[in-house]
Amino acid sequence: MQKYPIEEWQAAAEEVANRLDTAVHRKHFAGNAMAELAPEFASLVQTVARGRSYADPTVDLKTRALCTVACLVGLGEQPYIETWIANAMHLGATREEVVEIMIQLFTYVGTPKAVTGFRAAQAVFDELSE
Amino acid sequence: MQKYPIEEWQAAAEEVANRLDTAVHRKHFAGNAMAELAPEFASLVQTVARGRSYADPTVDLKTRALCTVACLVGLGEQPYIETWIANAMHLGATREEVVEIMIQLFTYVGTPKAVTGFRAAQAVFDELSE
Amino acid sequence: MQKYPIEEWQAAAEEVANRLDTAVHRKHFAGNAMAELAPEFASLVQTVARGRSYADPTVDLKTRALCTVACLVGLGEQPYIETWIANAMHLGATREEVVEIMIQLFTYVGTPKAVTGFRAAQAVFDELSE
Amino acid sequence: MQKYPIEEWQAAAEEVANRLDTAVHRKHFAGNAMAELAPEFASLVQTVARGRSYADPTVDLKTRALCTVACLVGLGEQPYIETWIANAMHLGATREEVVEIMIQLFTYVGTPKAVTGFRAAQAVFDELSE
Amino acid sequence: MQKYPIEEWQAAAEEVANRLDTAVHRKHFAGNAMAELAPEFASLVQTVARGRSYADPTVDLKTRALCTVACLVGLGEQPYIETWIANAMHLGATREEVVEIMIQLFTYVGTPKAVTGFRAAQAVFDELSE
Amino acid sequence: MQKYPIEEWQAAAEEVANRLDTAVHRKHFAGNAMAELAPEFASLVQTVARGRSYADPTVDLKTRALCTVACLVGLGEQPYIETWIANAMHLGATREEVVEIMIQLFTYVGTPKAVTGFRAAQAVFDELSE
Repeated sequence: MQKYPIEEWQAAAEEVANRLDTAVHRKHFAGNAMAELAPEFASLVQTVARGRSYADPTVDLKTRALCTVACLVGLGEQPYIETWIANAMHLGATREEVVEIMIQLFTYVGTPKAVTGFRAAQAVFDELSE
Repeated sequence: MQKYPIEEWQAAAEEVANRLDTAVHRKHFAGNAMAELAPEFASLVQTVARGRSYADPTVDLKTRALCTVACLVGLGEQPYIETWIANAMHLGATREEVVEIMIQLFTYVGTPKAVTGFRAAQAVFDELSE
Repeated sequence: MQKYPIEEWQAAAEEVANRLDTAVHRKHFAGNAMAELAPEFASLVQTVARGRSYADPTVDLKTRALCTVACLVGLGEQPYIETWIANAMHLGATREEVVEIMIQLFTYVGTPKAVTGFRAAQAVFDELSE
Repeated sequence: MQKYPIEEWQAAAEEVANRLDTAVHRKHFAGNAMAELAPEFASLVQTVARGRSYADPTVDLKTRALCTVACLVGLGEQPYIETWIANAMHLGATREEVVEIMIQLFTYVGTPKAVTGFRAAQAVFDELSE
Repeated sequence: MQKYPIEEWQAAAEEVANRLDTAVHRKHFAGNAMAELAPEFASLVQTVARGRSYADPTVDLKTRALCTVACLVGLGEQPYIETWIANAMHLGATREEVVEIMIQLFTYVGTPKAVTGFRAAQAVFDELSE
Repeated sequence: MQKYPIEEWQAAAEEVANRLDTAVHRKHFAGNAMAELAPEFASLVQTVARGRSYADPTVDLKTRALCTVACLVGLGEQPYIETWIANAMHLGATREEVVEIMIQLFTYVGTPKAVTGFRAAQAVFDELSE
């Protein structure tokens, strides 16, 4: 029977959490209905996502954060795009890089979803300027 | 009146094209109905995408290719995911990196779209093994 | 020429309406722009949906309501998910059942759409607690 | 109790059917699993769509066909785009008009969905050239 | 090397802009995050969309506006649907035509996206009544 | 630190697997690129989906299978719809129930996605008739 190194993932997930933009995450988590209604399941999702995926060193964390931003632009999910732009910038991504990624994705997603991405970027930039 | 440096973009687009997986691109382009029915417009899209977006050095080309893969996984568009996985690998991405990105994106897109991404990866890996 | 038992459907639709959460439906209907701008068409849609589909006894109404919730989670349409969770609970579904369905659907839709489902559930639970 | 002029819609639907590309429709209908598994319901959908919507003279049928094409490009549903391009051309739309609509929609839907539209157009153009 | 008549498109784009509902466009543009964060790119998109696509006389501008509305209903993007309904009405489309298109598209998009279209229509109708 | 009862889920997942349509699942699994490229992760997804979600007795397995069908119709993913219709029928759902669910979902998803659902149903019915 397959063994999953859950404890190891939990430790790794915590390390990843420390490298992400915890201010953003705390705010987001507070309003996360999945975490409130299904806390064990939400915590498992976080453990696997952070401890198994983001913690794996095959791809560096900043590149991963930008890929998540790009995937979420494809999905059109503004609050999640904001969270991951904030994370990417916490990991060293600049405003210029974020704007460049949005320009690049326009070709694939078209105006409405691209503007959703730009709007998310603007919300994060505004928050960081305060 | 705004001036766009189109000639510069055309030159830059050609340089980008040389760095992408031209075998894949030629194959894909051959069957591209937009290029056949609206050649001028398709060529403009290519010029802007490659010459303005991908050519811009703010984000390196391999990271851009991975972001395009991630965006297309969000959209669920298998043939385009294949093209951009091939491009990313031509630019140095390894199988392990591609597989890691797919595992990471599972959390956001769910099983059907994630499996589309893995299927695209497998198609490219198989082609490269021949 | 095909005959459709529209009068029968109208009667059946009314019976179904009485078994759904009319408080929720009245609120929702009030703001339904289709009902205001195209009243005859909106009424036909309601008659067919309730009188032909939901009234058919092949599948019981609670199971139907849960299937509609699940379909709407796939579509990512929060206000409609709320309406149908309220209907499902009016027909006997418990909070635990609703939460379980959301956990189950996570695997297919990924985090953003699953959280939309949980948020809809929370909105209905909060309304029922008042 | 609301009265719906179903018989009138049935007559109008037949007239609309005669103005559409019946060759295309017959082919499409033959493989329509909804028509086979739920014939009464599929027939009602056709009656309302053709007899109530397309038959209404407020918008001319060619403009309606082009709007349906545009909506389906937004949805990314190639076989339906083909059917409605064929219908639009049967009603007088030219290749040039169809190509122009696809170029126009690129801005909103991005490359993958736009190319799906162009591919559908090419399939219809090829069929008409045989 | 391909030449694109950008200056011609810029002039044509301005003419198109004059025929659209500039009040609506100015409002929309004001909040357009793409225009703020990537002004050159946003301006290029506008120039190509208006000067190359909408300005082309192969399809008249009112039909084009209705097709854009229909495509956006397929995508489910309410603020953009509002903009293009306003533009279509500025070009002569009546309330009745807009409502008819929404009824027609119901068959393809289902209730939630159709109601989004009706809600957009209602928002524009309300604004025009003020 | 949170403890997850993974071993318990693994045992429960096996029991669920025995109640599903294993013929269908084996066929599907064989071509599952996620299972081939990321076997540990795919196995974890299966363990959690089957052992945590489907195995939970709060909602009976047949209702769960129908909800998954409905969610997948909303997503428009035909091969997965087929798998879960086959599972639902293995658990006692009849053809009539499956057809009724598709008729019901038409109202929410519109023609193209509804026909995808009917096509999936027909593929399963055909396979079961052989």
